[in-house]
Amino acid sequence: MSSNQLFNETLANIIPVKREKIDLAYNRLNSLTKPKGSLGRLEDIAARCAAILGIEKPSVTRKKFFVFAADHGVVEEGVSAYPAEVTELMVINMLNEGAAINVLAKRVGAELELIDIGMGSDPVEAKFFIKRKVRAGTKNFATGPAMTSDEALAAISVGIERAKKAVDSGFTMLGTGEMGIGNTSAASALITAYQGIPIEQTVGPGTGLDSAGLQNKINVLKRALAINADKCTDPLSTLAALGGLEIAGICGLCLGAAANKCIVVVDGFTSSAGALAAIRMCPDVKDYLFFSHMSAEPGHRFFFDSLGLIPILNLGMRLGEGTGAAIAMQIIEDAIAVYNEMATFEDAGIIPGA
Amino acid sequence: MSSNQLFNETLANIIPVKREKIDLAYNRLNSLTKPKGSLGRLEDIAARCAAILGIEKPSVTRKKFFVFAADHGVVEEGVSAYPAEVTELMVINMLNEGAAINVLAKRVGAELELIDIGMGSDPVEAKFFIKRKVRAGTKNFATGPAMTSDEALAAISVGIERAKKAVDSGFTMLGTGEMGIGNTSAASALITAYQGIPIEQTVGPGTGLDSAGLQNKINVLKRALAINADKCTDPLSTLAALGGLEIAGICGLCLGAAANKCIVVVDGFTSSAGALAAIRMCPDVKDYLFFSHMSAEPGHRFFFDSLGLIPILNLGMRLGEGTGAAIAMQIIEDAIAVYNEMATFEDAGIIPGA
Repeated sequence: MSSNQLFNETLANIIPVKREKIDLAYNRLNSLTKPKGSLGRLEDIAARCAAILGIEKPSVTRKKFFVFAADHGVVEEGVSAYPAEVTELMVINMLNEGAAINVLAKRVGAELELIDIGMGSDPVEAKFFIKRKVRAGTKNFATGPAMTSDEALAAISVGIERAKKAVDSGFTMLGTGEMGIGNTSAASALITAYQGIPIEQTVGPGTGLDSAGLQNKINVLKRALAINADKCTDPLSTLAALGGLEIAGICGLCLGAAANKCIVVVDGFTSSAGALAAIRMCPDVKDYLFFSHMSAEPGHRFFFDSLGLIPILNLGMRLGEGTGAAIAMQIIEDAIAVYNEMATFEDAGIIPGA
Repeated sequence: MSSNQLFNETLANIIPVKREKIDLAYNRLNSLTKPKGSLGRLEDIAARCAAILGIEKPSVTRKKFFVFAADHGVVEEGVSAYPAEVTELMVINMLNEGAAINVLAKRVGAELELIDIGMGSDPVEAKFFIKRKVRAGTKNFATGPAMTSDEALAAISVGIERAKKAVDSGFTMLGTGEMGIGNTSAASALITAYQGIPIEQTVGPGTGLDSAGLQNKINVLKRALAINADKCTDPLSTLAALGGLEIAGICGLCLGAAANKCIVVVDGFTSSAGALAAIRMCPDVKDYLFFSHMSAEPGHRFFFDSLGLIPILNLGMRLGEGTGAAIAMQIIEDAIAVYNEMATFEDAGIIPGA
């Protein structure tokens, strides 16, 4: 099947979560031995998970994190505190299980796979390293489009394929992650382009720019947005012009999971840009997404405000990799456990109060 | 040993966490393969845990939740949406493992013990039900002190004793919890008395009062604060006049844990009042406390603002029992795991950036 066919079929298969199912889930939650609504957002999380995974007994079987790795041509403009080579070094660190996402995925009992979807280099083989390089890094989008729409579609297809394969293997909860020096630049540009938020609000220090570096990043991104303005005619062409290959992979993972009625826990700022591209392509995908945390990257707040969403956590994290999603995944499982395991008022012989 | 001797010895044994140890912990965190500070508040949590549990390899062994149950004479003033009998019914529900705290303590791998520290009734025996009733519920504090200072000291001693016994049995992280219809009234009165916050700001709907019920609760608490004003001469007498027996138990648990260099994860609004009493008795206790979440009970925000603290989670929960602490405990363990298990830049052959 061509990338284009796969993309269109996937979009066609995404259907919203049924309101009636959510109502049934709240009926169950209101029967449990606690004041109505007293578990707050845990109840909203549980209701949506139950509507997706099954009202009677929602259960999370296998969980997996997908860390898409790619490089960014725009790094040559000095938009990152780290050089491009660090993408490869950190991927190797992950393959050696030394990164934060290795520790946190293990803590939540999730598997992990790394996907080379667009790295500039070719690290050695490893058992959980998947090679799906679409191209060796994007082009510098300050001088023209980061990639072609066909390349963006190919990267989206990789994400769709990984999601489909995971669901077929019995995974019910997927987490997004990424590694790519320069990718907050692409994320900021995309969030500005999709949501109409001024670039000054969506740009931040990333891995650690100083104020001069931050001003340069703003200037570079203004140039990038201007030079690509006529290329950004729809959600896909915008993703191609301003995106990164890992961001397109995350977009595909969200679409593929939603088409297969699977929960996606979205990590931080860069992952949010991928999820946003998916929402722009198909708004119903939102029903399957759980946004894990508010990044310290200042643009994330404007992103959430523009979508009317509140993430689960706000811990001032700004590491990416999937780390925030790993922490939030535990809370989503807590919510499901409460839904499944608490006694009802009837069981306990208590008459519900207010 | 008398309650008074135990109390004084415990206070004398609480020493602040050493600044040099926290600095050493940040040195370790800054050597790990991530941009400096990029794990946000996880790093602050990890540093303080490491300073308490050991810089080289902090480790959490056994964990336990302590749910102190008690009744409140002030319930006769109509300050709760539920009748006093629900305290016993919910304790029985917990003993049957049907409550939210049972589910969430199990999820985080923590043991659970319930302590009858002042229930109006006497539920049957059960293996994790500890009987330490100081008195059968407090007196109605709208007409005079809730209890005597000796009774408050006895309840504090129960908490100290449970903490000491847990530490001696190898527990390194304790969670607070409570069950007591009417206890948000006591918590609001205490927070107002200790922090000088207007009672209108510290009172909330608790388990679910309507607006008329809320206004009545404010009126009752104004009366209680006025009638007990001359009794509130120090932290202990204030706790006796306005507190609850479960709140005094939590106060004791915090003091006993800190004196034994053990971490305490503080649950929601009512637990916070117990922790606050402990802080007023001995400010250094704060170094050992981790406040888990911002309750939906509106007074909690003013409590945190007055202490200059930000809790780990904000999920709109208002159930108590220890539920918020159970969720936060996982995150504290995540922070410790990252500290212990991530590779350093040196391991990974990466030169740290900004």
